[in-house]
Formats: sequence, structure tokens, C-alpha cells
Amino acid sequence: MSVLETTAEEALLGGLMSNEPGRAGAPMSAAPETLWEPRFAQRMHGIRASMIRELLKLTEKPDIISFGGGLPAPEVFPAEEIRAATNRVLTEHGTTALQYTTTEGYRPLRELLVRHMARYGVIVRPENVLITSGSQQALDLVGKLLINPGDRVLTEEPTYLGALQAFNAYQAEYLPVPIDDEGLDLDALERQLRSGPKFLYVLPNFQNPGGVTLSLVRRRRVVERAAHYGIPIVEDDPYGQLRYEGEHLPPLVRIDAELHGCGGGERAFTGNVLYMSTLSKTLAPGLRVAWVVAPETIITKLVQIKQGADLHTSTFCQYVAHEVAKGGFLDQHVRRIRAVYGERREAMLAALARHFPRGVRWTRPQGGLFLWVTLPKGFDTAALLEDAIREKVAFVPGSAFYPCGGGQETMRLNFSYAPPDVIEEGIRRLARVVERARKK
Amino acid sequence: MSVLETTAEEALLGGLMSNEPGRAGAPMSAAPETLWEPRFAQRMHGIRASMIRELLKLTEKPDIISFGGGLPAPEVFPAEEIRAATNRVLTEHGTTALQYTTTEGYRPLRELLVRHMARYGVIVRPENVLITSGSQQALDLVGKLLINPGDRVLTEEPTYLGALQAFNAYQAEYLPVPIDDEGLDLDALERQLRSGPKFLYVLPNFQNPGGVTLSLVRRRRVVERAAHYGIPIVEDDPYGQLRYEGEHLPPLVRIDAELHGCGGGERAFTGNVLYMSTLSKTLAPGLRVAWVVAPETIITKLVQIKQGADLHTSTFCQYVAHEVAKGGFLDQHVRRIRAVYGERREAMLAALARHFPRGVRWTRPQGGLFLWVTLPKGFDTAALLEDAIREKVAFVPGSAFYPCGGGQETMRLNFSYAPPDVIEEGIRRLARVVERARKK
Repeated sequence: MSVLETTAEEALLGGLMSNEPGRAGAPMSAAPETLWEPRFAQRMHGIRASMIRELLKLTEKPDIISFGGGLPAPEVFPAEEIRAATNRVLTEHGTTALQYTTTEGYRPLRELLVRHMARYGVIVRPENVLITSGSQQALDLVGKLLINPGDRVLTEEPTYLGALQAFNAYQAEYLPVPIDDEGLDLDALERQLRSGPKFLYVLPNFQNPGGVTLSLVRRRRVVERAAHYGIPIVEDDPYGQLRYEGEHLPPLVRIDAELHGCGGGERAFTGNVLYMSTLSKTLAPGLRVAWVVAPETIITKLVQIKQGADLHTSTFCQYVAHEVAKGGFLDQHVRRIRAVYGERREAMLAALARHFPRGVRWTRPQGGLFLWVTLPKGFDTAALLEDAIREKVAFVPGSAFYPCGGGQETMRLNFSYAPPDVIEEGIRRLARVVERARKK
Repeated sequence: MSVLETTAEEALLGGLMSNEPGRAGAPMSAAPETLWEPRFAQRMHGIRASMIRELLKLTEKPDIISFGGGLPAPEVFPAEEIRAATNRVLTEHGTTALQYTTTEGYRPLRELLVRHMARYGVIVRPENVLITSGSQQALDLVGKLLINPGDRVLTEEPTYLGALQAFNAYQAEYLPVPIDDEGLDLDALERQLRSGPKFLYVLPNFQNPGGVTLSLVRRRRVVERAAHYGIPIVEDDPYGQLRYEGEHLPPLVRIDAELHGCGGGERAFTGNVLYMSTLSKTLAPGLRVAWVVAPETIITKLVQIKQGADLHTSTFCQYVAHEVAKGGFLDQHVRRIRAVYGERREAMLAALARHFPRGVRWTRPQGGLFLWVTLPKGFDTAALLEDAIREKVAFVPGSAFYPCGGGQETMRLNFSYAPPDVIEEGIRRLARVVERARKK
């Protein structure tokens, strides 16, 4: 991979911290080098390269221990199962698996996801499911559906950077709500709901980047207050199956359905929550197969948008994903992933306790891929990153995840990618960097 | 495939002919059924279901001969080569092919496309190439990059419906330029260029839907006049390799590079043309692998947009496409496709001459997938379609391809999907429908 290229890791970092000069007032010219730029749409002011992108490129070097990306561990990819599934697909469905398909997605895959959702108490039909090209596309479609320039989106603070990138393209503004170990702060939530957000964007399970989980009490409250104010909820759940301790909690979409008495039996699934999840963390991200669950009227609109955006998600990848998953393989595979990542989470928590100085706090995620470190006031993790890269360890400065600025003293650490011994060494290096900064 | 679903075929038909009632003034309500709709973004007024979508669904029935879609013939899909390539990819690159990748796309595939472009005289580097999730995504990214609400896009009339769908989502308006057998009308082009379009969108080869090819003289003129007015060109070339008669003509991007003396040697590729093409018609549409060639500054911006739109195109599909194509297989495969589609084109032209009544005109495409039929004034092909479906034959009414209305007497016919004997029977049925309408 060339250092000139953009990794998905960097993709998670783009769009927020830019020192790009404004383009307003650039002169019109027919010289080919400058002809395009004055023609860029206004929304491009909100779509920017990242200042730290250049720094993060260095983390691609093999001798750097990277806690920066959100990459699954490649050693758990079920390459053999995917190979066998692909061979069956091309033997049995050689022509249809390579042809155009429906915008909604391959129906047997949608039916499989209906059964998957039912296990979590969410009773829907295939007409409530849209296959998307990764959850990132689901976020983009939601932005296109709902956001007018200047519309405000209520988000956790910090929140997923990729959502900010998707929504920024539609010129969103933000109403951030702080989170603690149980998720959204309810008083701040109430205030921001009164400020008139277009919708709530929430990651209830093992939040990216904070690693925290919205408690059951707060889940009920969030659903109830959003319904009270008539504000839709967009629930992003990429990691829900990757829980390493504690009990599974019902998704907001289920709590909302119970509140409205919809779904199940003869009643159509309606409601206030659009739910999205993905096969990227349980099967493989390279397939780009994710899904949205929503009332049928919303799916219909999202389908119309997706027609213009990419016609449909790769037929081939959908057939392969369905073939791998249909016999129940993913259940056993998720158990394996949980074991591997759970061990790595323990390794990172232990290493942090062992090496990090007093006064540093971190979350104890019950699942997912990330934990969140808060240094004492006055630290600037973006400045720290340069020294960290000299020590050959990398992380993401937390300010990248703040929709309205702040978070200079925070950082996000990924624990799924590196094996336990590498995690130990990386945290030891990172502790040295923090100690050094403290002494300055 | 259920009749409740949207096919890619229908995707090509959405967005233009709607009888959906306006939503303005819909009351706010917290009832879950109606909570979402008042919150839709303004751009959703331009993203609509198609009136004829319901009719076209009937064409999915196996006893209907459909000239409606733009589907490649599945019997030419190289399923065995794709199976062998997939097995090699998963053996040799099992972990990277399933992992996240760069937003720009898999570098060896971009390098292969650089060599492909060079054969057509377009000298670029991998930094000038972006892999997209089908050409449809390239159109969406272009819309996001360039179109402010109300901006006008200069298009051929008729033009590709998928482009209108993509651009409508950014609230584009249109400056249409009529086409004849040599493509864009130059006088009308000059007038519309003076009206200040944001950019030109052109399909120079075997245009969808018209089937016509922009002549060399006019290609030079289009490039020169666009440069004169400082208006960028978006060149869409999905079918360029599928030529069945006549000589290959240089793409606009090459003519523009020669005009500016850029590309090749030490000079960076800059210029006035963004070029896009796809593997959907030469390999398989189900992989959703296409590409954009543009100046590096534009690719950089498109990469930032694509990060927010879908992070990257399926790693798996990119590896498989590269593995199939890298040994030169696609060259021999394209020869086979040309033979098959060329024969089908002849079959349709012969059947039209044999069965269609006097006064009906049609184009004689030198390549591609479509030809264009013009009935005498007063015919309405949208009304005809109902009778056609009773006769178990389908087409796309031409008005769908007119950005500003018109074209009621035209229809698009696809000749790549049905075998010659089926084409003969389908055209015979269609001729009966036309004759019947004439007698009314």
C-alpha cells in the first residue's frame, strides 16, 4: 500500500481537522489546472482533508504498532468458508450472481436478516430491510433523505467520525450530548431535544469511539423522549454482537416498537427508529455488505436514493455473504471473534493499568473494538501523536470525534487488530510518550 | 425476484415521471407513521418513484420479451474465469482481499486501468484513477462535487436516465441539446454553452439511450468550445469497447489532453475532462467495479467525498476483477461479447425493417446495447406500453430520458439481452402494437 494512498483508517479521520485555505473568491479561469475548483459545490467547504491524515499515513509502516484504525483482525477472516461459498454460488447461481440485481438487495439475504433481527426481538419483513454498501452508505443515504443545509443532528459527544463525514456532505450542524459510562447524559439530551434536532444519531452498543454502552434505563428514556418530541432516531449498531461481558441489551428499535405496539402479527413495522448494522465486523469488511431496518415507507425512499447513488450493492458479495451465513456459520464464527477480541481487550486494559501514569482515565468497554482514554486537562493528544509515531505507536486523537470542537485531551485506542503481546508493547511505548509530555 | 422489488432495470426508470402528490404543508405529528415524512430534506422532491415502474414490473415475468432493461446477456458472463480468479485471490491474498482497503481503490487494479487507458492514447498515472462502485456512483460523486441547487447541467437530449437520477438528488436543472446521427447539435450546443452550464455531461459512444456516436469532427468541436467557455466535461463511456462496426474514435479526454498538451512524459495529467467507464459491460455488472480518470486534484476531492459515501468499493470484487483481467483475458472476452451483441444488433435491425410500418425511424448504433425508435408525431409510447405488455413485449418509453419533457413518440430498445430468435418475435409483437395504435 503506497503512502500516497488513503486507507480506510484515514477515511475515519478525514473531514474534521483541516487547515485547508478557503476557496471563496478564487478567480474564474479557463486554464485547465484551475478550471474545476471555482465550480465546486458549496457543500465541498464541509468536505475536507484531515491535518492528521499525513501523520496517520506513517502508521502504515510495518514497524509501527497501530491502535489507530478500526480494522478487524485479519486472522479471523473465514477465507476458506468464503472460498467454498463462492464456488457454490458460481456453480449454482453463476449468471444471476454476476448480473444486476434489485436495489433493495438480494431477497434471500434480506430474509436471512429478518430472521437475524427476530432473534433480537425486532419483528420485521423483507420489505423493511435494505442492503447497503457498508454502513457508511447507510449513513450517506440517511443524510440525503433527511438533512437540509443547516439542519442540526443530535449526536453523542464524541461520536463516530464516519457519520460526521457523511452528514457534513449535506451541510449538517450538530447538537452534541456528552456521554458517560452509561451513555448519553439525560439532562443534556432533554435540552438538546428541545433545541429542535432533525434526528438523533446514536450508537448504543460499545460506542465508537467511546467504548461505552447506553444502559437499559437510559435506552427506554431516549426512546420515550425522542417520541415525545417527535424526533426520529438513527440507531447505528455495528458491534452489537461483539459483547465480551455483561448481558445483551435490547436495541432502541425494539424498545420503540414495543412503545408503539407495532411489528409482529398483522401489524406492519412502523416507528421512530431507523436501525443499521453490518457484516463488516462479523464476516469481513471487504465485502461491503450492511443493512438498514426501517418502516417500509422509509425503505421505499432510501431505495429511490440508492438507485441514484450506486444502483445496488454488489450482487456477487451479497450472494457470497448469504451463502456463508445461511447455514448458521456466523453464529459459531462470532463466538470465535468474541474470544479473540475479548482476550485483546483484557490485554489492553491490563497493559493500561500496568503502564499508564496516575491521572489518566479510560473506559472499560463491554464489547466492540475501541476504548477511550482521557488524559489530564492540558494534554493535547494531537501534539502527542507526533512523538508517538517516533516511538512507533499510533492512536487517533480524540478531537476528531467531537462534532463541535473539544476533546484535545482524549484518544481512541483500537484493541481488535494487534495481538496481545503487541498490545502490551504498544501501550508501554504510549505510556512513555504520555510520561514525557507530562514532564514538559 | 418478487414483483414487489425494484430491479436495476426499474432503477433506470425512476425519478422522472411521477404522479406523487406534493408533500409541502404536511402536518407535523409524533405518530410514528407520519413522523418521518415532514422531516424529509427538500432534495427529496426531486427523487421520485416512476409512474411506469409498476408497469415495468410486469416485464419480469418470464413469458414477457423485454427490450426494456440494459442488462448484459448472462450467457456471456465468464463465471468459470471468475471462479478460478476468486480461488487464487483467496489463496494468495485471503486476508487483504477481505479487509478494508484504500478509498482510491486497489492499486494493482488502478495500475491495470492506467495501462488500459494508455491503449486509447490517454496517458495517466494511478493517482488519476479512482475505483467507484459502478459508474452510477461516479455520477453521484460528480453531482456532489459540482452541483449546487439550481445549477444547470448541459446534457444530450435524450440522455442517460441514471445520470438524471444522480444529478436530481443535488437539485440540478438541465440545458438539453438535441442529438442527431452524429451526436450533439453544434449550434444548440453553442447556445446552451452561452447559457452558463456548470458542466457538460456527454456519452460520446453508442449513447444511452439514443445509440448514436459523436463524430470525430464534433468531438473536436465539443472539446474546443467547452474549453473556450471554461466549462468542464464529464465523459461517460460505459460501452466504448463494444463497437460492432466502424473505427474506434478517440475519447474526449484524449482530445482535450492533446489540446492542452498535458499527460505523458513529465507533465502531469490535467485538463477539462473527467472520464468514467466500467467493467459492468465487459466483465460483469454484479461486481460493481467502475473507474474515474481525472486530474489528481479532482481525484483527491472525489476520494474525500467517497470516504463519506461508502468508504471504498468492495475489496473482494476489486481483487477478483484484477485477477480476472490482469493476464489479458478481458481482451479476448470483449471479442466474444462483440460477436454475440453484434449478431443481436443485426437481428433487431433486420426485424425492425421487416415488421415495423412505414414512417417509423430508428438509429443504427455502431456499438453498445441500445437503439432508439421514433414513431410519427402523435404517438405516445408510454400509452403504447400497456398494450405492449398485453402482447408480452416491453420497452422503455423515450420520455423517461428527456430531462425537460418531450419525446412522447420515442422508445428505447435493448438488443443485448435477448437471443436473435427472441428479438425477432419481440419486434414482431411490438410492430403489431404500433400498427394497432396507428389505426386508433
